[in-house]
Amino acid sequence: MGQQLFTMVQDGGITTPRGFKAAGMHCGLKKTDRHDIGVVVCDVPAAAAAVYTTNLFQAAPLQVTRESLNEGGTLRAMLVNSGNANACTGEQGEADARSMQAQMAEVLGISKNEVAVASTGVIGVLLKMDRVSSGIAQLPAKLRSDAQGADDFCKAILTTDLVKKEVCVTFTVDGQQVTIAGAAKGSGMIHPNMATMLGFVTTDAKIGSSLLQEVLREVTDVSFNMITVDGDTSTNDMLVAMASGLADNRELTRSHPDFTAFEAGLRHVCQELAKMIARDGEGATKLIETVVIGAQSDAAAQAIAKTIIGSSLVKSAVFGADANWGRIIAAVGRAGQPVNVNTVDIRLGDILMLEQSTPILFDEDVALEYLKGDTVVIHVNLNMGSGQAIAWGCDLTYDYVRINAAYRT
Amino acid sequence: MGQQLFTMVQDGGITTPRGFKAAGMHCGLKKTDRHDIGVVVCDVPAAAAAVYTTNLFQAAPLQVTRESLNEGGTLRAMLVNSGNANACTGEQGEADARSMQAQMAEVLGISKNEVAVASTGVIGVLLKMDRVSSGIAQLPAKLRSDAQGADDFCKAILTTDLVKKEVCVTFTVDGQQVTIAGAAKGSGMIHPNMATMLGFVTTDAKIGSSLLQEVLREVTDVSFNMITVDGDTSTNDMLVAMASGLADNRELTRSHPDFTAFEAGLRHVCQELAKMIARDGEGATKLIETVVIGAQSDAAAQAIAKTIIGSSLVKSAVFGADANWGRIIAAVGRAGQPVNVNTVDIRLGDILMLEQSTPILFDEDVALEYLKGDTVVIHVNLNMGSGQAIAWGCDLTYDYVRINAAYRT
Repeated sequence: MGQQLFTMVQDGGITTPRGFKAAGMHCGLKKTDRHDIGVVVCDVPAAAAAVYTTNLFQAAPLQVTRESLNEGGTLRAMLVNSGNANACTGEQGEADARSMQAQMAEVLGISKNEVAVASTGVIGVLLKMDRVSSGIAQLPAKLRSDAQGADDFCKAILTTDLVKKEVCVTFTVDGQQVTIAGAAKGSGMIHPNMATMLGFVTTDAKIGSSLLQEVLREVTDVSFNMITVDGDTSTNDMLVAMASGLADNRELTRSHPDFTAFEAGLRHVCQELAKMIARDGEGATKLIETVVIGAQSDAAAQAIAKTIIGSSLVKSAVFGADANWGRIIAAVGRAGQPVNVNTVDIRLGDILMLEQSTPILFDEDVALEYLKGDTVVIHVNLNMGSGQAIAWGCDLTYDYVRINAAYRT
Repeated sequence: MGQQLFTMVQDGGITTPRGFKAAGMHCGLKKTDRHDIGVVVCDVPAAAAAVYTTNLFQAAPLQVTRESLNEGGTLRAMLVNSGNANACTGEQGEADARSMQAQMAEVLGISKNEVAVASTGVIGVLLKMDRVSSGIAQLPAKLRSDAQGADDFCKAILTTDLVKKEVCVTFTVDGQQVTIAGAAKGSGMIHPNMATMLGFVTTDAKIGSSLLQEVLREVTDVSFNMITVDGDTSTNDMLVAMASGLADNRELTRSHPDFTAFEAGLRHVCQELAKMIARDGEGATKLIETVVIGAQSDAAAQAIAKTIIGSSLVKSAVFGADANWGRIIAAVGRAGQPVNVNTVDIRLGDILMLEQSTPILFDEDVALEYLKGDTVVIHVNLNMGSGQAIAWGCDLTYDYVRINAAYRT
């Protein structure tokens, strides 16, 4: 991905960029005492942008957030609950989402259009609003600008996720230090098409909301839109970004000399979060990365990479550490893209298995050892053109079935 | 599906139509002593038709069969091995497929273009041709026109299938009794797009090969093309039909008064085989049928039905007997088809769960009892138009993962 234009902030999180505080707690939506409501708050009105699921059945909070962002283009807070998706809940669901937004605005003393709302969890069940209200009332007192605040928020957005997902990078713009941080949740019903699950980005860069929206959409296409856990696009996917502007740089434009650093930093934050979601997919034991090069176009490479990463047979084979490249080529062949059937190369890691569509004898023990690792990289070269793409996913395991055979119970 | 124009033949199989014999045996391609090579032979040149996988990487035997059928349009034999797919095996694989065809033709004393060849099993490994040759040499002596011959053939085409798949129907054309029978294998890498896995149809109807080809393609679209086990379209899918003409009816045309009976019979044979493949999907414990009505078009209904039946989340929920209709509506919403998000009804069996997109309280115990059965029917009414479709699939289970985590080993 070229020259590194930014530095990772090891212990950084969504409260690292200047102006942001966060909180998270248990209000009673999850059965166990895990965190289930959280909020990120900015000291100043932040330029904001968001991308939403393409699923036709968009959850109520997405509709409410979209309306509010269309009004002003700035946000002061992002409120999220887990344990209940508030999707397919009809008019009551929409009223509940509006109520969450209004209550949060009231306790923070801001306008309701400055509050984004998001929900994740089971579909088709009404929110227990008394518990949500109780949470909203308690959150302001818990707001912190340190790592603890970010940690509490990250935990509050998880469902079947096993680990919290947070990334932070820093770089300079006009000589000023700028930071971008992101938090996300994923796990199941992961096949984003527009945005992912829930993702939250904070930055102190000074950037207008329309440019932020453009860049957010572009990086989403090469990050969250390139992962799949199970091929199911959720009703609740949403990625929201807030830029406080407190880094005090000259406002970013596409012609700004440091714009590429901002873009690279945001892309890195989103790609790392996307990979964390893939690695922590429901039941997953490893991350699968599929690199497709030599395709007729980037779009063709993307489609092929996502077909491979979405194949249940490929995913099961990786779980079983079985170097079954036949399943990879079968996926290439059904992706609906131009392929020269005589010129395909396939490697697992560094191990060449197919060259110019001809099977190569390889050492099964070496392949087994590689496949037992926690990251498996599938390389496909179509040797046709310069189109390329990278997609991320995870293996298909007994635990995926176990988790999803009894999700509601 | 309207009036029954045919009668099921309970113990019928592919040797029931007049003129057909079959055989199957173990030649050494499978590790255990299960049957792995079989043949169906017709006493006379049979009008023939076939449909093939749309996967770009078509296995060598498909190319050879297609060429031969294009030459003459008639077949005398269909030779199949299991245990090795002879796919992605380069020039040697093609030479092996041609050699299988030529050897079978020689021992039967017929032209090589009268032999269709098919293979199923692992991809990318060369056939052990000495074992195949030994099987071909022994098969003619084992040919039988009774149920035993059909049974041996059906067993010879299975891979991870647990049960053999055979259907037979009869009806009259011009007062003559006509019989259609079919055999198939399925199990994994099942998401046919053009044909399925391996399917073989025999009939004694008199019908030209071009009309047979047309009808075969039409019924494939509403049978094999409407099932999915795991979303993976195989490199080896092929459905071949042979019509001996020995029923001695006046040759069938579209205007023949009994053409509808032939079409209905062939559709039934193909749909029943398709459902058997779905029910016996790798690791499956039950058949899922998805009925979509009220769509804007049949094509929209088909796409939605296949999206639902292909959802890993829906499949896992059915395995766990969890009435999680939220996953069904999420699949409807990502199918890429026109949907009015306010008018959707969903039923599981007879249990209404969503009406006009509003959740309906239902008895969880009754739903659990229904979902524990061996067949689960998902009804979706979009209330938009008259488009409809039915798709079939199976649940996603621990055993699917177990089987596919170590397929080659």
